[in-house]
Amino acid sequence: MTSSQHTDTIVALATAQGISAIAVIRLSGLDAISIVNKVFRGRDLEKLPSHTAYVGTITDGDKIIDEVVVTIFKEPKSFTRENIVEVSCHGSPVVVKELIKLFLKSGARLANPGEFTRRAFLSGRIDLAQAEAVADIINAETDNARQAAINQMRGGFSKEINHLREELIHFASLIELELDFGEEDVEFAKRDDLRNLILKIQSYLKVLIDSFDAGNVIKNGVPTVIAGKPNAGKSTLLNTLLNEERAIVSEIAGTTRDTIEDEMVLGGINFRFIDTAGLRETDDVIEALGVQRTREHMQRAALIIYLFDLSDTTWEEIEKEEEHLKSLGIPYLKVGNKLDKANPELLKKLENRDFVLISAGKKQNIQKLKDSVLSNFHIKHVKQGDVMVTNLRHYQNLTQTFEALQRVLDGLNSGITGDFLAMDIRQALHYLGEITGTITTEDLLDNIFSKFCIGK
Amino acid sequence: MTSSQHTDTIVALATAQGISAIAVIRLSGLDAISIVNKVFRGRDLEKLPSHTAYVGTITDGDKIIDEVVVTIFKEPKSFTRENIVEVSCHGSPVVVKELIKLFLKSGARLANPGEFTRRAFLSGRIDLAQAEAVADIINAETDNARQAAINQMRGGFSKEINHLREELIHFASLIELELDFGEEDVEFAKRDDLRNLILKIQSYLKVLIDSFDAGNVIKNGVPTVIAGKPNAGKSTLLNTLLNEERAIVSEIAGTTRDTIEDEMVLGGINFRFIDTAGLRETDDVIEALGVQRTREHMQRAALIIYLFDLSDTTWEEIEKEEEHLKSLGIPYLKVGNKLDKANPELLKKLENRDFVLISAGKKQNIQKLKDSVLSNFHIKHVKQGDVMVTNLRHYQNLTQTFEALQRVLDGLNSGITGDFLAMDIRQALHYLGEITGTITTEDLLDNIFSKFCIGK
Repeated sequence: MTSSQHTDTIVALATAQGISAIAVIRLSGLDAISIVNKVFRGRDLEKLPSHTAYVGTITDGDKIIDEVVVTIFKEPKSFTRENIVEVSCHGSPVVVKELIKLFLKSGARLANPGEFTRRAFLSGRIDLAQAEAVADIINAETDNARQAAINQMRGGFSKEINHLREELIHFASLIELELDFGEEDVEFAKRDDLRNLILKIQSYLKVLIDSFDAGNVIKNGVPTVIAGKPNAGKSTLLNTLLNEERAIVSEIAGTTRDTIEDEMVLGGINFRFIDTAGLRETDDVIEALGVQRTREHMQRAALIIYLFDLSDTTWEEIEKEEEHLKSLGIPYLKVGNKLDKANPELLKKLENRDFVLISAGKKQNIQKLKDSVLSNFHIKHVKQGDVMVTNLRHYQNLTQTFEALQRVLDGLNSGITGDFLAMDIRQALHYLGEITGTITTEDLLDNIFSKFCIGK
Repeated sequence: MTSSQHTDTIVALATAQGISAIAVIRLSGLDAISIVNKVFRGRDLEKLPSHTAYVGTITDGDKIIDEVVVTIFKEPKSFTRENIVEVSCHGSPVVVKELIKLFLKSGARLANPGEFTRRAFLSGRIDLAQAEAVADIINAETDNARQAAINQMRGGFSKEINHLREELIHFASLIELELDFGEEDVEFAKRDDLRNLILKIQSYLKVLIDSFDAGNVIKNGVPTVIAGKPNAGKSTLLNTLLNEERAIVSEIAGTTRDTIEDEMVLGGINFRFIDTAGLRETDDVIEALGVQRTREHMQRAALIIYLFDLSDTTWEEIEKEEEHLKSLGIPYLKVGNKLDKANPELLKKLENRDFVLISAGKKQNIQKLKDSVLSNFHIKHVKQGDVMVTNLRHYQNLTQTFEALQRVLDGLNSGITGDFLAMDIRQALHYLGEITGTITTEDLLDNIFSKFCIGK
């Protein structure tokens, strides 16, 4: 954490752009109150208590810009621990522009992306993992994603990690003390206690690392590829699932060349359905590119919905395809389409097999298919307090910490010297500290906060 | 004004839709505070003073939806004169959806478009003209439009109109009293005083009515048609003015068929430039339709920019075109284009004539053209307190009032009986009362507020 005190005052629109009932402009910094006070008529804002709201006008000289409500939050009892003023004006882009121009003229400067949250972090009000959770809440696309982000913002695993980190620091200091004593062969840090501590930390890290698969799905959705032979009805299925005419459908096999993607929330999970070009040998160069792309998408999918045309597929073809699907090592769902025109003999063979039989065109058994998709990704609803890693950066740091600790364990077992132990412990501490921001660099912060929207 | 007390509590998102730092949900009504209090953890909101803000969480059972700031405005010191709670949450559409769902479950109902402002009107906090000004502020596209709307919202002509109306009511009562006395030929209302009052009201109405032309331009912009022969460079000029590739430009005369329209703010006025099909006799049916549409647009324009191709026009053609332009009775600006390829003899003839000479392609003298456009619509910046009619409804009512008063004057001059006088005065009072909403119908209110956005 840097000790820099921000004396400059930042300003930005905090609400979404556009015409609306109201818009909120936020200022934070030493002079936030005095800057607004220069142009506010109604009350002397500098004399008023924190957390109070006032109606008045904002004027530029004689010119009234708007009637507004200002709410004052005095340092340190604010989001940034600085003085904050929120100006709630009419939701007109012209009004917003004029007000921000006036605040800039009065001494504020435009905020950078994420700068309010960055100040909340730098002032120590929240740690880095919590700051990142703020962005995750805003960008949440499902209620599960929102809940996971809220849990993280309200502390999440930060407290536990800081606690384990302190215990580890304690051992690191003892070992480094040994090094100071050089040749005297003292042992301040008991090796057995250290081993036990590392095992304890590792088992906690393991839980967090393992939660990432589910956490990632909750945050980013499940890439679900719809594949199959040409004309199996893939685009029709996508349209039926999304209840709209998203993909161009025709009788002509090979209609879809680009992959078409759209999202749908099922059971609180965001599924990204990807319609693909039909799998076949082809001389058409563009179609061949499409087929190649389909294979790439299948490799990266979290779930493959494989469509068989029940009116035009043999049992042998099904067996052959299934062999290929198995070899990919990715969860797949076998779906028989065109149930209304199905070959009766084939249907009989499919009985009591794990096939979902539908008609995409006639919208038959679609709910059954949705249920099957969902049961392949049954994630219980995220509850208050559930600890879950959803952030790739955290996942990477947790993994790196785990590996550094493993090196310490291996070192203990092979009896290496204290200086090597100390190095690996320091490494583990570094990775751990970066998660909550105890250790940061400007570059890391720039990287994290540049992804925020302006005004947050 | 109806006397209906609203006991139900309405809720809506007050800020624009979309991902942003914060979003504000607003509740208004008798139970606004108790409804939020049911799901807010942090403080007992019912015991807190008006105009104060509190940080806390909104929870649905055990599930935390979001950390929020709630601000309380207690009746009657609020925009609607009802209890109002503003809930400032993270600017995530998912969070907003979950919170509104929860407030609905807790006893609120979704607000209709404009319902907050409608309640502010019905409670007598603002009059109807002021309520309409709220929508005008939100939709203002220029700073002048914003200022005109603010002036109206802060009272505008409402006060003066109400004052004149009261004087007129006084006379109407006296005349109706005379009618009660029937045959006795008394005259409570002095005819000379009435005549003077009506002249005074009419002269005030005249000022307001005359301000509508400027007010309408400020609110809705100036429709400016770019016309001329095919290939005069009209589309090139539109692109140059807007600094972008808005219209498709080609060497082929007759490229533009649809009229293309875009807006640009010059000197605080919104000009709507309309690029049109070139004017010529043509056998192409689609182009002929375009030419016809051009002529219609010219009829409706507030300004015509007529483009001559300096490389390919004779003095005789110019004279002939100008005659036609004069006959339209609409302000026009003669512009010579392709200055870089101009015929030198023609150029000499144009010297010291009221021509703006430009090259749209080479971006030559474009600023000079903009200045000329603007000087044709020199509207001084709207200042604090400037009274200006910008609303078509107000303009129509003012005109109807004026005409009704004219009938009263004529009646006075021709010595008609009191009952006819009273009828016309009542008519004038009706139109006047509708402006500020002293007289309204549900239909009128529905019509006005249905144009508002939800949440306002």
